[in-house]
Amino acid sequence: MRYLVGVDFGTLSARAVVVGEDGTEAATAAMDFPHAVMDKTLTAGDGRDLPPDFALQVPSDYLVSMEHAVNQAMAESGVDPKDVAGMGLDFTASTILPARADGTPLCESEDFKDNPHAYVKLWKHHGAQEQANRATALGADTDWLARYGGIISSELAIPKALETLEKAPEVYAEADLFVEALDWVIWQLTGNLTHSAAAAGYKALMQDGSFPSPEYLGALNPGFANFVEEKYTAPTLQLGSCAGRLSEEMAERLGLPAGIAVATGVIDAHSTAYGIQALEPGALTAIMGTSNCFIVSDPDFHEVPGCFGAVLGGVVPGLWAYECGQTGSGDILAWFINNCVPERYSALAKERGISVHQLLTEEAAKQRIGQHGLIALDWHNGNRSILNDSTLSGVMVGQTLKTTAVDMYRALLEAIAFGMRVIIDNYAASGVAVREIVAAGGLLKNELLMQIIADVNQVPVSISTSQQAPALGAAINAAVAADVYPSLPAASTAMGSKQPAVYHPNPEAGAQYQKLFDEYLELHDHFGRGGNDVLHRLQKLRG
Amino acid sequence: MRYLVGVDFGTLSARAVVVGEDGTEAATAAMDFPHAVMDKTLTAGDGRDLPPDFALQVPSDYLVSMEHAVNQAMAESGVDPKDVAGMGLDFTASTILPARADGTPLCESEDFKDNPHAYVKLWKHHGAQEQANRATALGADTDWLARYGGIISSELAIPKALETLEKAPEVYAEADLFVEALDWVIWQLTGNLTHSAAAAGYKALMQDGSFPSPEYLGALNPGFANFVEEKYTAPTLQLGSCAGRLSEEMAERLGLPAGIAVATGVIDAHSTAYGIQALEPGALTAIMGTSNCFIVSDPDFHEVPGCFGAVLGGVVPGLWAYECGQTGSGDILAWFINNCVPERYSALAKERGISVHQLLTEEAAKQRIGQHGLIALDWHNGNRSILNDSTLSGVMVGQTLKTTAVDMYRALLEAIAFGMRVIIDNYAASGVAVREIVAAGGLLKNELLMQIIADVNQVPVSISTSQQAPALGAAINAAVAADVYPSLPAASTAMGSKQPAVYHPNPEAGAQYQKLFDEYLELHDHFGRGGNDVLHRLQKLRG
Repeated sequence: MRYLVGVDFGTLSARAVVVGEDGTEAATAAMDFPHAVMDKTLTAGDGRDLPPDFALQVPSDYLVSMEHAVNQAMAESGVDPKDVAGMGLDFTASTILPARADGTPLCESEDFKDNPHAYVKLWKHHGAQEQANRATALGADTDWLARYGGIISSELAIPKALETLEKAPEVYAEADLFVEALDWVIWQLTGNLTHSAAAAGYKALMQDGSFPSPEYLGALNPGFANFVEEKYTAPTLQLGSCAGRLSEEMAERLGLPAGIAVATGVIDAHSTAYGIQALEPGALTAIMGTSNCFIVSDPDFHEVPGCFGAVLGGVVPGLWAYECGQTGSGDILAWFINNCVPERYSALAKERGISVHQLLTEEAAKQRIGQHGLIALDWHNGNRSILNDSTLSGVMVGQTLKTTAVDMYRALLEAIAFGMRVIIDNYAASGVAVREIVAAGGLLKNELLMQIIADVNQVPVSISTSQQAPALGAAINAAVAADVYPSLPAASTAMGSKQPAVYHPNPEAGAQYQKLFDEYLELHDHFGRGGNDVLHRLQKLRG
Repeated sequence: MRYLVGVDFGTLSARAVVVGEDGTEAATAAMDFPHAVMDKTLTAGDGRDLPPDFALQVPSDYLVSMEHAVNQAMAESGVDPKDVAGMGLDFTASTILPARADGTPLCESEDFKDNPHAYVKLWKHHGAQEQANRATALGADTDWLARYGGIISSELAIPKALETLEKAPEVYAEADLFVEALDWVIWQLTGNLTHSAAAAGYKALMQDGSFPSPEYLGALNPGFANFVEEKYTAPTLQLGSCAGRLSEEMAERLGLPAGIAVATGVIDAHSTAYGIQALEPGALTAIMGTSNCFIVSDPDFHEVPGCFGAVLGGVVPGLWAYECGQTGSGDILAWFINNCVPERYSALAKERGISVHQLLTEEAAKQRIGQHGLIALDWHNGNRSILNDSTLSGVMVGQTLKTTAVDMYRALLEAIAFGMRVIIDNYAASGVAVREIVAAGGLLKNELLMQIIADVNQVPVSISTSQQAPALGAAINAAVAADVYPSLPAASTAMGSKQPAVYHPNPEAGAQYQKLFDEYLELHDHFGRGGNDVLHRLQKLRG
């Protein structure tokens, strides 16, 4: 039996899993990043205050946490390191840092350790909104903007690097390179600087083999024209490729054999798709947690309105991978529980030893469809797909003096399922079929929600069985990079796992939900497509 | 000094006040009706179950409670009964009972004591909805329906009597008369059966001196054609009139001198107008509690769309009195507190020894206008004026993951003020001016709400200073009936009381609220006037 090591770099920690080539998870271990996320003060530097839209990390934290997690997982697994054939990793993105030509992060120099722009800008760093807006406006003339839903998010690599040029030109000038953290860790592991096709396509606007042109970049800022040529050049590798061999030095730190294959990095949200066997066209990977992410592959290119990423080889080489998302789902439910549920429910939940979520879900499950008389829009955190409008907000209609917290909670569950259906219907209308939903993430535990999703969408819902689907996905990439399997689909079939069609669509319930979905859609279009721009005006008044 | 006794018959009790001719309230006392409201079982009869839309009372309860309250108030006042010049009363309406020609209620016969229809149908008895719908449909051809906002409510006298004919023909046949409880109590006090102009106009559809025609009533049901002639005939007396003299027998029960003047009865909601000196044209009586009622007088008739009662002499002889209302106000806030506010607020309120209402109001008062980014529609209990649509429901737009209970509470306060402004603007657009709001009722204690109302409407808000404004209004009627004052306005000026212009409109705040009101109005028309009939469809789904 050969083993693979997958490392999942989340927002707050690195988690390693040791997996057999048959998919058996031998052990897992995690370690939080020592500096976590720096979003208030620059704790790794002089402790200065940071602007409210900043979210930074420290590159060395990635190595420290990875080292600890891999060593611990290996020790607990009992696996002989000699049996480890390869390792892979998945990472948040675009999580990007400025570095010197030898890979040293700029923030590690005495001159730059107090400059926030010299650190890693985490995916959720939003300091580049102004740059992103300009990039979007200028992108209107390009043929690739539509592949990003017509909007350049401030979370992408280009706005983040441009922000550095404009806000900290001394950092920009001194940086030989800007590197995705995902590629940087692999560089540290192997000595090779490469681009992952996924990060390049989804986060650095690479389409049809090219990054944005010098003309486009120069129009954003004359000093930015040669950004790609000068500071963002590396070979781009397909997923499942071997990015290099584990160096002696890193092999020692990780307790793994030197020379094993290190796979190209995967974007964390996408990595789950490998782990849950959702790589075939028509299988929608639904990662449902705080927010929801929906990835599906198709052999052909289709223009999918409101899709925020269409990348050839973004998940599986040779297939187009489409990504859409809901900016709010679990976080809306959490907001509701924290802000809108009276004491008697928390008291009862406490008494019964269950969460308030569970209590409300149990009660909501007893209701007949439509009984609560409510329709909600799930826009409390804006709408990513398909409207791509972060300034939208939530709506609830139909409250009476008899409306209860249970009623409103169920309406929010339904709103999440309806928002998801808008995305799935939009995929279908654009030519991208969805025949199965394969769900992973924290919302899986809400079985009522899962059944509502099956009923509303009239599609069977399969569920992830691994607790570590992203790290497992990274290990699956490693298995391909190490030639244990010939392709990602083959490795996913062998090593990934799901419980198929756990939730069957009920046609009768589907017909009843159709009435509510029609109402949702009418409100969606009215408030989201200009019928009444009140949500935008309220957002301005909110200030 | 002469004294007057006013008795306010509410939904659950009779409250007596003894008032000097200078307005000094010497004493007050109340007694609950022994059978309260029979809305589940017929407790005064065989205890049978009642339909869910029934709300019945026992006529003798009115006399028992009045006797107790008047005796106690007189005793506590120390007033010599010989100094009492008259008495008056106000009453809920249409609160109607079947009686024999001598005034004996039918429910007091052995044959009828177990028949629900033989009892008093309280104002909020809703068993006659089907009859009211037919009365509305048939009324379309009349010239008086518009004076009731185009809708015959099931709370009016005609549908309630028709319900008795159709559901309990034996009761209808045996009843010599149907009598407003208000007129029935005066009949018991004086031996005279009269109609109050207010109850006749507002609750029995009397317009231009006539009740609905035998043709109209016969079209509702052939057996109902002669209802008015046979069972609803009595002289109609203007407000402030003397309906008769207190009989020996009742004088003894009440401990008052026989022969004193007993005034025509007043509708309870209207009685407040006398007590708070709001009888002049342009002064809006705003009774704000569970729901809101807005009454204003004008010398001329104007067709006011959505107004649910325009009656000449309905409050002051010679003036048209217009009534509009909000079906939800305090009850919406109470619903919110009970169903939508998390534990930490109740814990904090408890710690500080204040109500959750107070706590949220204090916090809401700190916000800048528009800061919460929300707009709500105050339709949780339907909309009376100006849409006259009981099947509407509440709406809230603009919620984000940062929205708090304080934000939503303030949005509801504003919604109440916006709903009120729709009514006031509608009065103005119809030619009925509103220059001052004189407010009374439980919502007065929310000073933030009162200031919002002044700012949103840009009208000064005066407030009631009597705690017993309705009973005081009844005493003011008694003062006119007893010739202590020559007219209701004169008596109101002398005996009523208000604190003028406590809340001044702030023009700057008015300009900021205007933006929010524009949004309110757009949502109001969209959801209330057919732009999107979702609220009606949801109501049907609710079942």
